[in-house]
Amino acid sequence: MASIDVMRDPTKSGKAIRAQLRETIPHVITLLDELCKNSRTLEVFTSLVKHLHAFARETKLSHDEWRLAIEMLTRAGKESTDFKNEFILLSDTLGLSVLLDEVAHPRPDGATESCEEGPFFTVDAPELPSGTSLVKDGTLGEAMYFESTVKNLQGEPIKGAKLEVWQADGDGLYDVQYPDRQEANNRARILATDDGIATFHGVMPTAYPIPSDGPVGDMLRATGRHPHRASHLHFHITAPGYDTLTTALYPDFSPFLGTDPVFATRKSLICPMGLSTDPKEWAELGFKEGDVRTGRVHIWKYNFVLASNAEVAALKASMK
Amino acid sequence: MASIDVMRDPTKSGKAIRAQLRETIPHVITLLDELCKNSRTLEVFTSLVKHLHAFARETKLSHDEWRLAIEMLTRAGKESTDFKNEFILLSDTLGLSVLLDEVAHPRPDGATESCEEGPFFTVDAPELPSGTSLVKDGTLGEAMYFESTVKNLQGEPIKGAKLEVWQADGDGLYDVQYPDRQEANNRARILATDDGIATFHGVMPTAYPIPSDGPVGDMLRATGRHPHRASHLHFHITAPGYDTLTTALYPDFSPFLGTDPVFATRKSLICPMGLSTDPKEWAELGFKEGDVRTGRVHIWKYNFVLASNAEVAALKASMK
Repeated sequence: MASIDVMRDPTKSGKAIRAQLRETIPHVITLLDELCKNSRTLEVFTSLVKHLHAFARETKLSHDEWRLAIEMLTRAGKESTDFKNEFILLSDTLGLSVLLDEVAHPRPDGATESCEEGPFFTVDAPELPSGTSLVKDGTLGEAMYFESTVKNLQGEPIKGAKLEVWQADGDGLYDVQYPDRQEANNRARILATDDGIATFHGVMPTAYPIPSDGPVGDMLRATGRHPHRASHLHFHITAPGYDTLTTALYPDFSPFLGTDPVFATRKSLICPMGLSTDPKEWAELGFKEGDVRTGRVHIWKYNFVLASNAEVAALKASMK
Repeated sequence: MASIDVMRDPTKSGKAIRAQLRETIPHVITLLDELCKNSRTLEVFTSLVKHLHAFARETKLSHDEWRLAIEMLTRAGKESTDFKNEFILLSDTLGLSVLLDEVAHPRPDGATESCEEGPFFTVDAPELPSGTSLVKDGTLGEAMYFESTVKNLQGEPIKGAKLEVWQADGDGLYDVQYPDRQEANNRARILATDDGIATFHGVMPTAYPIPSDGPVGDMLRATGRHPHRASHLHFHITAPGYDTLTTALYPDFSPFLGTDPVFATRKSLICPMGLSTDPKEWAELGFKEGDVRTGRVHIWKYNFVLASNAEVAALKASMK
């Protein structure tokens, strides 16, 4: 490395050497500035060091606390698997994942807010017409009817819109969490009508916990938090010429809405829910005899508003 | 958990719920404030989240960069062993370890600056009188003579001072890095004379690299840095009634002084070195026939200044 040879003789001191020989700490940033040739790497590490040091000074972090952090981080690596990464959980539970999503996907005023995808999306969901059911026979959960119109920022329905939906069942489990999964369940790509209307039948998802058997679970407990996510439906909404929307919707009666461990709930994504106990209405909504097993159907209505590719590009350009 | 039950019904909203339902990110801190009952834990996590979010916003951290960080951190955990912890290396190479030492061990003006202990201290060093040798026969390296007076802030020599020294040899290796180590080598607890004078013979340590075969090595390479520490001697200096000093000294001719990967070099700890090529002088310094194999002896002189326990306590009290 050429950079080393330059430094071999301290009498030939460059900027980094002079800074290093000060008694103070800011020389970390000066050294990076001297040696790091990639401007983006330099930008990221300069900011990282600045905030890491400010955090340690501000909190007067002790050696015992530092040792605990080293142990927790080491465990987080050791206990991560292909199916559960503790650092992703840490990013989620410190609000970083949601923040990155906000930074990467700014949305024009009036467009539906986005929300992170989470770990349960699959590519094998069937494509179904509006009005059909997401669920296989025997799926756990109370009956649910969902209805949406997909519109643009000008209030016009969008032709050719697709709603890809995936969700947990009435036990808080996604199909992929059942070891005997044969095919997709509780997930589909629903084709909207020419009027932008998409409806489907299914079961109400219930709240479920994120994994809390590792160091992130310890962190949640140490800070008085719980691991339970409010119940929700996940969506990818696509239409030609429009920016893809990844989001989730929450029923207003769900527990844990206000204390989401991954900070993904949004006021604008919480839906006032309806409830039908009238078998005649169930039939009008397309439920067949035997579909409704608990004497009621949850009715969920939410209209999505997509921004066009051009509108999002203009917003991003204005933020630079 | 009682805190969960309170949150079950979002209509019974507390402070955290109201904040959570805002569309913005600061609700992470509000939620912690609502739920975390331990004031120190709250203080640390509030500061951590504040700086983590500021870092991500400031750098507009992308999802690709985030994924790379998740991968590096996961690898850091997986590749850590009982003998090499990548998170400690990360703390060292980002300057955090040195900063924590600075925060924990403020020193009054005039006292010798401290410097981190590093991973090679052992408890089995022999206790030897001033004037003896640290090295076993056959130890690699050029001959070195070290001389120091240990004084207090008032300039008086300290009676009963001990210098515990440990160091790498002429190959840049500590005794513990040799698989056939039988006993301590290149380390001792030297008892100063009543005049506070401590001298010893040994070999000049040479520069050596910190481990760079893991993700921290990748980080050093990505930022244009090298893993080589300047050559140095480690010390613990103790005396009854005085604050223990953990420090290190560096010869002025060492390479890498200005680009230390762990930011532990300090201007005040770099020593101007002498060189003797005169066999008569070698004998005066206590070298025996055959001790000097390369025709020269490095002469290293440095006076340590200890602060008393009372002086350090007063300084800490004044900083609160």
